[in-house]
Amino acid sequence: MSALQRVAIVGPGLIGGSIGLAIRARRPEVEVIAIARSEAGAAAAVARGAATAGSADLQVAVAADLVIVATPLPEMRPVLARLGRILPDTVLVTDVGSVKAPVAGWAQELLPHAQNFLPGHPMAGKAESGLRAAEATLFQGAPWIFTPSSDADRTRFAEVVRLIEALGATPVWMTAAEHDRRVALVSHLAFTVSAAYVAAVKASPGWARAVDIAGPGFRDMVRLAGSDPDLSAAIAQANRTELLDAIGHFEAALKRFRRHLEENTPSIWELFEESKLVHDQWMAG
Amino acid sequence: MSALQRVAIVGPGLIGGSIGLAIRARRPEVEVIAIARSEAGAAAAVARGAATAGSADLQVAVAADLVIVATPLPEMRPVLARLGRILPDTVLVTDVGSVKAPVAGWAQELLPHAQNFLPGHPMAGKAESGLRAAEATLFQGAPWIFTPSSDADRTRFAEVVRLIEALGATPVWMTAAEHDRRVALVSHLAFTVSAAYVAAVKASPGWARAVDIAGPGFRDMVRLAGSDPDLSAAIAQANRTELLDAIGHFEAALKRFRRHLEENTPSIWELFEESKLVHDQWMAG
Repeated sequence: MSALQRVAIVGPGLIGGSIGLAIRARRPEVEVIAIARSEAGAAAAVARGAATAGSADLQVAVAADLVIVATPLPEMRPVLARLGRILPDTVLVTDVGSVKAPVAGWAQELLPHAQNFLPGHPMAGKAESGLRAAEATLFQGAPWIFTPSSDADRTRFAEVVRLIEALGATPVWMTAAEHDRRVALVSHLAFTVSAAYVAAVKASPGWARAVDIAGPGFRDMVRLAGSDPDLSAAIAQANRTELLDAIGHFEAALKRFRRHLEENTPSIWELFEESKLVHDQWMAG
Repeated sequence: MSALQRVAIVGPGLIGGSIGLAIRARRPEVEVIAIARSEAGAAAAVARGAATAGSADLQVAVAADLVIVATPLPEMRPVLARLGRILPDTVLVTDVGSVKAPVAGWAQELLPHAQNFLPGHPMAGKAESGLRAAEATLFQGAPWIFTPSSDADRTRFAEVVRLIEALGATPVWMTAAEHDRRVALVSHLAFTVSAAYVAAVKASPGWARAVDIAGPGFRDMVRLAGSDPDLSAAIAQANRTELLDAIGHFEAALKRFRRHLEENTPSIWELFEESKLVHDQWMAG
């Protein structure tokens, strides 16, 4: 397949806008069409330099070689349904959704040319969301996960992968199930624990005066609770089986700390020591 | 009382060394004596500019106007015991321990002039520890908590408070019990949850490949698990009643998230939304 000449980005927010900025910076010969919910949103993407043209009409996607669906997760299904009705067999499609098995299922169900769909997930992000927070370097050094079905023809997506590499990301291949299991552990469990920590502090007597004296460690722990709750809830529901499994692992681990404290033995030290050693290995590796 | 002319810092690590650097920067007329476990440690503090003189002999503390005990928590009791045997009535003593009721108890028990002891805790820190990580600006804008007993004569400590303010910190007064309750919630629960999160990920099948794709949110959540395990274990044990109470609040909050996920109702959104609103209030305030 020849190089991609025209890419449509549906949903030019933090991720979609950053993809547009990165393509414009690294592949200036590629035309980028931002497709937003409103003409104003599309114009903002062009003004920001994240696209060469903009539209509020999904129909313009038919003229692209590749459509990147970068809307929030709850909007992906309706977008895929509409793309399924209009896209010819010649247009490739990928997405950036945080959960992959459900998105792959929607594509199978809704795209007549499902063989053109490559589920994707760049492992990059920021606390801020929206086009304003977008940056061309967001994917520099980040893994970009692809989860094609086992019978997919990967050569079909060679140019998509080359584009992703041009943005500075490293393609990583795995099954959708494997992806969802891993992100439940390192991402979805993390924002759930952070949100639960905020709720726990808020439920405790005298919490306001406690927060007044909190230090940088507290800020680290609550940062993810500041994520978009619509997105967190959508991800948690879409990946609930894996997330519940991860929460189970976490509850068991915390219970070990609690038990050692209740029994008041010096062995609580071993638990902190073990976590410290694991932490140091991860951060070194 | 006249201004402090000579301050002895026992334990010139991250906190003790930062106090020394800050005093030298903001109050260069004050003599700072670093008292370390070894002559090499004391010399390093002087070389680093955190002290004007150094010694491995606690006996030199008798010549100070103020002794700041900045050792790790497990060493505070033996240090206070030795200070009790050598200090005259004219020397004030404070500490920087992360838990206050136990330290106040040790001072009552071991210092013949317990009325000269002001329990303290600067709410500042870093992931790194030791003298190398010390910096003169560590206390800039940080609360510095003091927990004198109800019958203490606070005017006795006016110069200590003035010194702390000169370092850029804000003195905050409360009871030792109130301090220990608050830090259990915003500090000790945070490092326990972070350590439990690391343990949970490590206990899950395929954790290594999951960590490979982890993003910045994961790093925030595990950062506190990189704290010194000796210190974490000592703090957790010294403040176990309050920490167990805080863990209980956290377990209840997490259970609400789990229940909503198990029941698979859209109301999980309300939990994330509530934590997001609380998070935003805290970060704005």
